[in-house]
Amino acid sequence: MNSSVRPKSKGLLFVVSGPSGAGKGTICKKLLEKKDIELSVSMTTRKPRPGEVEGKNYYFVSEEKFLDTIKNDGFLEYANVYGNYYGTPKDIVVQMLEQGRDVVLEIDIQGALQIRASYPKGIFIFILPPSMAELRNRITGRGSETEDDINLRLGETLKEVAYIDKYDYCVINGTIDEAVNRVVAIIVAEHSRVSEDIYELIEKYKEEI
Amino acid sequence: MNSSVRPKSKGLLFVVSGPSGAGKGTICKKLLEKKDIELSVSMTTRKPRPGEVEGKNYYFVSEEKFLDTIKNDGFLEYANVYGNYYGTPKDIVVQMLEQGRDVVLEIDIQGALQIRASYPKGIFIFILPPSMAELRNRITGRGSETEDDINLRLGETLKEVAYIDKYDYCVINGTIDEAVNRVVAIIVAEHSRVSEDIYELIEKYKEEI
Repeated sequence: MNSSVRPKSKGLLFVVSGPSGAGKGTICKKLLEKKDIELSVSMTTRKPRPGEVEGKNYYFVSEEKFLDTIKNDGFLEYANVYGNYYGTPKDIVVQMLEQGRDVVLEIDIQGALQIRASYPKGIFIFILPPSMAELRNRITGRGSETEDDINLRLGETLKEVAYIDKYDYCVINGTIDEAVNRVVAIIVAEHSRVSEDIYELIEKYKEEI
Repeated sequence: MNSSVRPKSKGLLFVVSGPSGAGKGTICKKLLEKKDIELSVSMTTRKPRPGEVEGKNYYFVSEEKFLDTIKNDGFLEYANVYGNYYGTPKDIVVQMLEQGRDVVLEIDIQGALQIRASYPKGIFIFILPPSMAELRNRITGRGSETEDDINLRLGETLKEVAYIDKYDYCVINGTIDEAVNRVVAIIVAEHSRVSEDIYELIEKYKEEI
């Protein structure tokens, strides 16, 4: 038994967010390899693509089921993108947290702001590209967009970055390993925060004396 | 150049505190070996002991000089212990922070509470023993105290632990390496906090676009 940890407490929800192209997806993928943490899986009305696995990539549901879940306040956040619904089912995340599991959730900025409202105890991490020049390089590297598209995208990014003050942490994704290490440090530090469960430990001390 | 760090900003002050016997001294010593951080050196009116070095162990000063410094609001905290004064000189710490150097300050709980008032931007870390039984072992191991002394000490410790809600973080010192790693994670995480200096970076982004 590890004597350096507190009495078993609830897990923490880490929301990894940021503009498109900043690398939040890659960071979350590497994080899952390095750290004992669950990835939150979204529910969607979109049809599965070849190779996509139910419960791993998404929970694939009917529009009726999705709208019912909205009605029952069953989402931490949801959105309709090009006619398909996507949402984070509240009960699944809350259950993992209650069991003491940490959960990481990768999401765009609009979604993160919804979660801030529905689950303010979450820890919100904003992933930034090291520079706009580097972000331009990354987008250009994909080769699928025109100069005008790219300028539009960078303009959108700047608007999104203005929401950074709604976040707790900001990690600059210069190199992926360093960025992941920073997220890991944030997780470790957040588990060392003085919070309610520390009083359980103090009660335990009193009994021991 | 490391592209993953923010524009040069001020250093952070980490106050490592906790009851006697919890191991804050050992943690700070190891931390200095692992991390690029300055140790705050106290000023005292006590006479130097053999081997103690001016400016490393303490700044040794006259009582007149110490009282003058109090009068000029020159301490982050100070105390009189058995007739000798001890204090943390404000100007030296602030200068290091302004130069962008992190500073760690090891101090008892009364001192930490004074610093919380004089420098609220500090980050306050409470070091806890893994259990009262283990703390009893550690104190008994030193062999210099009677059973009554030890019970008195443990009672004092319990009273001190009640101040934990004035702290930001709590690190349980079960094994020294894990405790130091946690403090390192706290330092890394605190440097990733969304704070004023992030707006400089956003301004930089705007210029780049």
